[in-house]
Amino acid sequence: MTRTLIRNGLVITASDESAVDVLIEDEKVVALADPAFAQGWTADTVIDATGKYVIPGGVDAHTHMELPFGGTFASDTFETGTRAAAWGGTTTIVDFAVQSMGKSLREGLDAWHAKADGNCAIDYAFHMIMADVNEGSLKEMEGLVGEGITSFKLFMAYPGVFYSDDGKVLRAFQKGAETGGLIMMHAENGIAIDVLVAQALARGQTDPKYHGVVRHALLEAEATHRAIRLAQVAGAPVYIVHLSATEALAEVSRARDEGYNAFAETCPQYLFLDVDDLARPGFEGAKYVCSTPLRPAEHQAALWRGLRTDDLSVVSTDHCPFCFKDQKELGLGDFSKIPNGLPGVETRMDLLHQAVLDGHIGRRRWIEIACATPAKMFGLYPRKGTIAPGADADIVVYDPNAQQVLSAETHHMNVDYSCYEGRTVTGKAETVLSRGRVVVDKGEYLGAPGHGRFVRRDTCQYLR
Amino acid sequence: MTRTLIRNGLVITASDESAVDVLIEDEKVVALADPAFAQGWTADTVIDATGKYVIPGGVDAHTHMELPFGGTFASDTFETGTRAAAWGGTTTIVDFAVQSMGKSLREGLDAWHAKADGNCAIDYAFHMIMADVNEGSLKEMEGLVGEGITSFKLFMAYPGVFYSDDGKVLRAFQKGAETGGLIMMHAENGIAIDVLVAQALARGQTDPKYHGVVRHALLEAEATHRAIRLAQVAGAPVYIVHLSATEALAEVSRARDEGYNAFAETCPQYLFLDVDDLARPGFEGAKYVCSTPLRPAEHQAALWRGLRTDDLSVVSTDHCPFCFKDQKELGLGDFSKIPNGLPGVETRMDLLHQAVLDGHIGRRRWIEIACATPAKMFGLYPRKGTIAPGADADIVVYDPNAQQVLSAETHHMNVDYSCYEGRTVTGKAETVLSRGRVVVDKGEYLGAPGHGRFVRRDTCQYLR
Amino acid sequence: MTRTLIRNGLVITASDESAVDVLIEDEKVVALADPAFAQGWTADTVIDATGKYVIPGGVDAHTHMELPFGGTFASDTFETGTRAAAWGGTTTIVDFAVQSMGKSLREGLDAWHAKADGNCAIDYAFHMIMADVNEGSLKEMEGLVGEGITSFKLFMAYPGVFYSDDGKVLRAFQKGAETGGLIMMHAENGIAIDVLVAQALARGQTDPKYHGVVRHALLEAEATHRAIRLAQVAGAPVYIVHLSATEALAEVSRARDEGYNAFAETCPQYLFLDVDDLARPGFEGAKYVCSTPLRPAEHQAALWRGLRTDDLSVVSTDHCPFCFKDQKELGLGDFSKIPNGLPGVETRMDLLHQAVLDGHIGRRRWIEIACATPAKMFGLYPRKGTIAPGADADIVVYDPNAQQVLSAETHHMNVDYSCYEGRTVTGKAETVLSRGRVVVDKGEYLGAPGHGRFVRRDTCQYLR
Amino acid sequence: MTRTLIRNGLVITASDESAVDVLIEDEKVVALADPAFAQGWTADTVIDATGKYVIPGGVDAHTHMELPFGGTFASDTFETGTRAAAWGGTTTIVDFAVQSMGKSLREGLDAWHAKADGNCAIDYAFHMIMADVNEGSLKEMEGLVGEGITSFKLFMAYPGVFYSDDGKVLRAFQKGAETGGLIMMHAENGIAIDVLVAQALARGQTDPKYHGVVRHALLEAEATHRAIRLAQVAGAPVYIVHLSATEALAEVSRARDEGYNAFAETCPQYLFLDVDDLARPGFEGAKYVCSTPLRPAEHQAALWRGLRTDDLSVVSTDHCPFCFKDQKELGLGDFSKIPNGLPGVETRMDLLHQAVLDGHIGRRRWIEIACATPAKMFGLYPRKGTIAPGADADIVVYDPNAQQVLSAETHHMNVDYSCYEGRTVTGKAETVLSRGRVVVDKGEYLGAPGHGRFVRRDTCQYLR
Repeated sequence: MTRTLIRNGLVITASDESAVDVLIEDEKVVALADPAFAQGWTADTVIDATGKYVIPGGVDAHTHMELPFGGTFASDTFETGTRAAAWGGTTTIVDFAVQSMGKSLREGLDAWHAKADGNCAIDYAFHMIMADVNEGSLKEMEGLVGEGITSFKLFMAYPGVFYSDDGKVLRAFQKGAETGGLIMMHAENGIAIDVLVAQALARGQTDPKYHGVVRHALLEAEATHRAIRLAQVAGAPVYIVHLSATEALAEVSRARDEGYNAFAETCPQYLFLDVDDLARPGFEGAKYVCSTPLRPAEHQAALWRGLRTDDLSVVSTDHCPFCFKDQKELGLGDFSKIPNGLPGVETRMDLLHQAVLDGHIGRRRWIEIACATPAKMFGLYPRKGTIAPGADADIVVYDPNAQQVLSAETHHMNVDYSCYEGRTVTGKAETVLSRGRVVVDKGEYLGAPGHGRFVRRDTCQYLR
Repeated sequence: MTRTLIRNGLVITASDESAVDVLIEDEKVVALADPAFAQGWTADTVIDATGKYVIPGGVDAHTHMELPFGGTFASDTFETGTRAAAWGGTTTIVDFAVQSMGKSLREGLDAWHAKADGNCAIDYAFHMIMADVNEGSLKEMEGLVGEGITSFKLFMAYPGVFYSDDGKVLRAFQKGAETGGLIMMHAENGIAIDVLVAQALARGQTDPKYHGVVRHALLEAEATHRAIRLAQVAGAPVYIVHLSATEALAEVSRARDEGYNAFAETCPQYLFLDVDDLARPGFEGAKYVCSTPLRPAEHQAALWRGLRTDDLSVVSTDHCPFCFKDQKELGLGDFSKIPNGLPGVETRMDLLHQAVLDGHIGRRRWIEIACATPAKMFGLYPRKGTIAPGADADIVVYDPNAQQVLSAETHHMNVDYSCYEGRTVTGKAETVLSRGRVVVDKGEYLGAPGHGRFVRRDTCQYLR
Repeated sequence: MTRTLIRNGLVITASDESAVDVLIEDEKVVALADPAFAQGWTADTVIDATGKYVIPGGVDAHTHMELPFGGTFASDTFETGTRAAAWGGTTTIVDFAVQSMGKSLREGLDAWHAKADGNCAIDYAFHMIMADVNEGSLKEMEGLVGEGITSFKLFMAYPGVFYSDDGKVLRAFQKGAETGGLIMMHAENGIAIDVLVAQALARGQTDPKYHGVVRHALLEAEATHRAIRLAQVAGAPVYIVHLSATEALAEVSRARDEGYNAFAETCPQYLFLDVDDLARPGFEGAKYVCSTPLRPAEHQAALWRGLRTDDLSVVSTDHCPFCFKDQKELGLGDFSKIPNGLPGVETRMDLLHQAVLDGHIGRRRWIEIACATPAKMFGLYPRKGTIAPGADADIVVYDPNAQQVLSAETHHMNVDYSCYEGRTVTGKAETVLSRGRVVVDKGEYLGAPGHGRFVRRDTCQYLR
Repeated sequence: MTRTLIRNGLVITASDESAVDVLIEDEKVVALADPAFAQGWTADTVIDATGKYVIPGGVDAHTHMELPFGGTFASDTFETGTRAAAWGGTTTIVDFAVQSMGKSLREGLDAWHAKADGNCAIDYAFHMIMADVNEGSLKEMEGLVGEGITSFKLFMAYPGVFYSDDGKVLRAFQKGAETGGLIMMHAENGIAIDVLVAQALARGQTDPKYHGVVRHALLEAEATHRAIRLAQVAGAPVYIVHLSATEALAEVSRARDEGYNAFAETCPQYLFLDVDDLARPGFEGAKYVCSTPLRPAEHQAALWRGLRTDDLSVVSTDHCPFCFKDQKELGLGDFSKIPNGLPGVETRMDLLHQAVLDGHIGRRRWIEIACATPAKMFGLYPRKGTIAPGADADIVVYDPNAQQVLSAETHHMNVDYSCYEGRTVTGKAETVLSRGRVVVDKGEYLGAPGHGRFVRRDTCQYLR
């Protein structure tokens, strides 16, 4: 048995903040105590957290390692991506296993298990992308929920690739209501967007900025509303991924005011970047192409509001990096060929801490939206997302005063640019423990591929 | 030249009510005058309207004569249907010419012209149903607008028949914005409804009442919202047909409060019938199968509210009669095979007059929603929808005190039942003039097939 | 008997537009006819309206001639004010008789009758300001309604002057529901505003612009909501006067969407002026001090939207002029002493016609909000507000192409400045008839004091 | 030093649920540990919580011990009331010290300190009721915040007693924004209500049920909206007390959706009782007279919705008991003389646990609304409202399976009736610790007057 003791820090959870020492035995937290009381405790490793926060490791509920997209693959493998996550204070990811058209869910899941198994620096779980909703795949949902794959993502966007029509969406919601599987929705009207894409290209509007024009905020709002109504008809909850538009948030707020179980996440890129980034000169904007797209800066205030009142419950990254060179460049001369996605798994916790300093959210709310609620939403609680006896010792000693300059030079994601290049943020993960093992410590990586394990998830614990 | 003089009535238009005599020369109103002043006027025909209202002939903007539907045809021909309309005080219909899948708009329009030409008792115009939105049919819209076909109906319901996907809908709105053609929308999520239909039938739920269950109010609201958002993206106005659900009305109200040009009509069946009719014992409910479906009675108050504040601007009939015998009976044992549609062209004006007596709307508003606004909405104004010098002499001498019992025994529609069998209403068209010719007088039909002419319409005159 | 014939114009009413000749006998319209038909008519006076509009004379439902306010009097007498109205194409005003504190309604009404009698160029009616709501004055409402004083204004602003507390407001609404008297509300939270006024002055913020700061848009919205809720509790309709803030309009829209009889007017100053005018250098801003105050320019779009969808039903002037010299100057060094009010009775019709040209409203809607609806709202219909046989011959021949530069140099209101000094508008009343008499013709004033008569009003005709 | 160990329970906080042992030294929690780890711990007192919940003691943020009201006093003293609270699992109350008209806040506070000092079974704090808002009392707010009186209640109801007009309300909000003092609002339009009261009595409507009629839901909604708008103008947060109406909740939801810091509490009586109780035969309804009043049962669903989405953040009791005999009976023949208030401090935790079983809220949300959020809202955190090392050992061992029948026979509040007489609820506090001392244990009271101490509060910790 190995004992680790974290002394003198301020433990922050979604609900509490206390000056408490944390004792770990092997992989679990076993005790929290007043420092005076804990004086007598001994440990193999003692970490002095004086002046630091001791927080649950981040739970990033939306990543796409090695995702095949538009003829290329997201540039982070499970190995590089989870390592970068650890550097950034995230100790659990929920990645998306992908069903291929014409194949079973099982085949997709097996493939993703194969990619991840033995390669991860931190624990991981899977959502399942349903690209082909049919009798068979709906039936498979039942079994997968039993195996800890308790959430299923559908797309109202990307016709011909991941797109499900409203009948398929409705049936998936019905099956979700039946099995407890939570339906996650990429809510954009892809059919309409594709018309606008073709028209823009026909007009010679090929620059990255047109990506933001054709993926109209109203088409996000429309699909968000549609998803919510279909969920209501089925009697199921719904979780909207990567919400970015004020108008889409308004639909979620309305549904919640009416008492429906509509949940939504947003992502750091929507909180800290905007449409001006997409319009950067030359092809630079390609670095900021993701879907839903970046919005005009005035949308950010609405998103912060949503985060404060829980109309937005989670901040995930939608981490899906593509290198500028060779990958993003696939879209030179045609924005619609730019692979959609941004790197972000490493910077989420820090950007949100910056939001605490900027006054957008409180310190406990930071932990709630980045650790606790994603864990509850996706059935990882109480193992993940909090610091309590019995929980996995996924813990970050966080220095709230450390300054860092975000840069591709220094980040650990396998991608050749940073969306935040040159931006200074205050706050940094100093020591990161994954199930009791120190994987990052004061700028040194101490983890190893295969330490991270697959986690079977329960069904949603955020429903009341 | 023939002169007709209507004396001593109360002339009611959308805006005015005055004790005025009306002088007609041939087909046109030529003068309105104070009775004292008109004392000296002479005429070939003098109609004494003492104690009566003198109102514009009704404009029914939504009829389907001889519509092919589900393997049969609407039972009213242009001859029988327009005659029944005249009996009920309606002097203009706008019927829907239908494009067939794979055919041009032109072919559909020609076919409808052929059906109507020489057969109508009253004037008529055409909307165009676009069943096949493509480069060709979109291009055709330009020409049709020039020919007086200035409105185009699309369906978000009926996949495989009339259904257009959101890309087609968006393109039609764009073309509408470009040409001034007004897009009319059947707003129900047909893709989702078809799933619910199949599930209901699989459960053995085959009775007519399930028609109302599967066509969920939220699926009308969803499609209404979607249509509005797609219209907004295209910068086009939208006109929602046969709105029946409170939730759908809320979407229209919201859009209008936000300043968008969203218009909607409802129909008498949604104001006077409800889901209990659909659930009548035996197969009787089939008589009440139409889409959107009848709703629970509590929706009616919301619709009346909408009519008062102009969130509902028009009351049309969606007249589409099928005989109970042999036609409605096609759906015995399978509600989804019941032809969708109700008879109504004859009873609209009277039912709405009853609503005046019931206190739901004012007398001028009656004329506005039944005559003036449909005329303005669909570019028939000022020829139709009002009584003013220069306007067509489509005029009804209406007895506000006459009582009548609605019944298939006595109505003139070519259908073997009445939705309002046995219901007493107060008010009745006593004398009906179409372009100056008396076509109905005190219970006698004096019209003739072919009197009614095709009317070229201008573009929407209701936009401000 | 005198006959007047207006030939060849385009007659525009709230609902219709027709090329029609108008025949007048003495004070009334007696016939409208197709020009060809009217060819044979003869008249004492023939007015050629070729190329002109023939519209109902304007009905200005909100004026304050000779109002005592803050130690001075509104600078227009009934003589000068009604003459200016006539110049501007307005042929009926509804002025506010004022009850003094401690006095009866009757005494106030008598005083106003005395001021107006024999002095007016055009017809006039009275609303009654209730400054002292008590058993006696509530009882008096019954009698006044019978005398044609069918609307009663209360103030939630001006504590110590006109202010009524919520109990008085509620009782007035109850009496309104009982008698059919329509309660008009000045909806601003005067108690809160007075706190902000005192604080601003204490901080040395004495310039006119602070008038706009202390009369916060949210305090208008608050009072508007409060008035509506109190009306609902009493089961009465409510008419909000001079609505200026987006947030206040939102309350009216919400109430109407919920089915309540909430009506509102706005004024040209809120549509054409903004807070930058209040902030003009020196003491110039005093010219723009009125209550509710001018708002930031972005509120205007909301008001136009409200006018399009009838959430705003009427445009009145709140004409209450004070000369800059000596009157507005009472507030030098203390904005709260600036008499509240602007001149406007002469420019309303023209500014709203400009709005037609600017695309904000349609031509018929222009007549509806400026003539027809105020007449219906305040029980003047069908004598006023339309052109129809039997109606008073209050008619304007309006030149839609005439250009004019608004200026104190040329206007006829008795006030030493114009709010629109130097602004060019297109459209001008060319000939104005009041009850059949030409009072203005091509730049010449032909009217006389005492031609205008008091009009007894019916109760509200705009309720449905 | 005394050590207490609670073994084998399920510790539930607002965010976490874990099988954890809790170690207490003297008055504080010093450690939480996995039971296996805690095996070796020794203690003076060991409480076996097997099968039980271990929860933070309840924080009741709204009580009125010994409140003078309508010529009598609330029947619970600080001694009896806090003892009853302890019985029910509540270990902190925040009571309302009352400023008398014409007196200083200080005098009122001193009086309340005198009533409570030495008498309380559990810890207590004070809000301050401001009955007389003036320069002096506003100035005093600054000092009181420094003394731990960090919230101030105003009344829009009760004219002549506690009522503040909107100017006073605004000034209090301004001072709240300046000092960090949180303004709590009794939001009912008392001026309008008093009119309705007088009218009801004049009509002979004297029964208790009319209390519910005159205190109209729209008058609660109105005042709620007004309070929020005034707070917005002042830039201050607002906390609405005892919200009971759907329409009032809608105002809070709207404000929160717009991003304003509006918070609200409801009370168990609004969740579990309804207007039918007020209408009980005879004078029985008097037992249910409180303000805001009980509402029709359909309001309850809206309140539960609000609790789920945090539009309602707190459930307090508004404990203000009056005996039926002699006290409630003061209103025999005149409902307006019935003292307003219900007993409830003892039953809140149990009723809310019942709501968990009924599926209205989750287990952690139970603790959040009853313990954690009130502690954070009113600056008691982290001493109160959670179980964590460093926190006060205010802990309840709660038996989730115990059944009890609520009854005046068995309750410990000093009042001769129970609002829930005969109602069975599942769940009961078995052992209650106040700052480490067992004050209730398995049906035995072990506490003592004077154990409870006054707690100085920080300013609101719930703002983000």
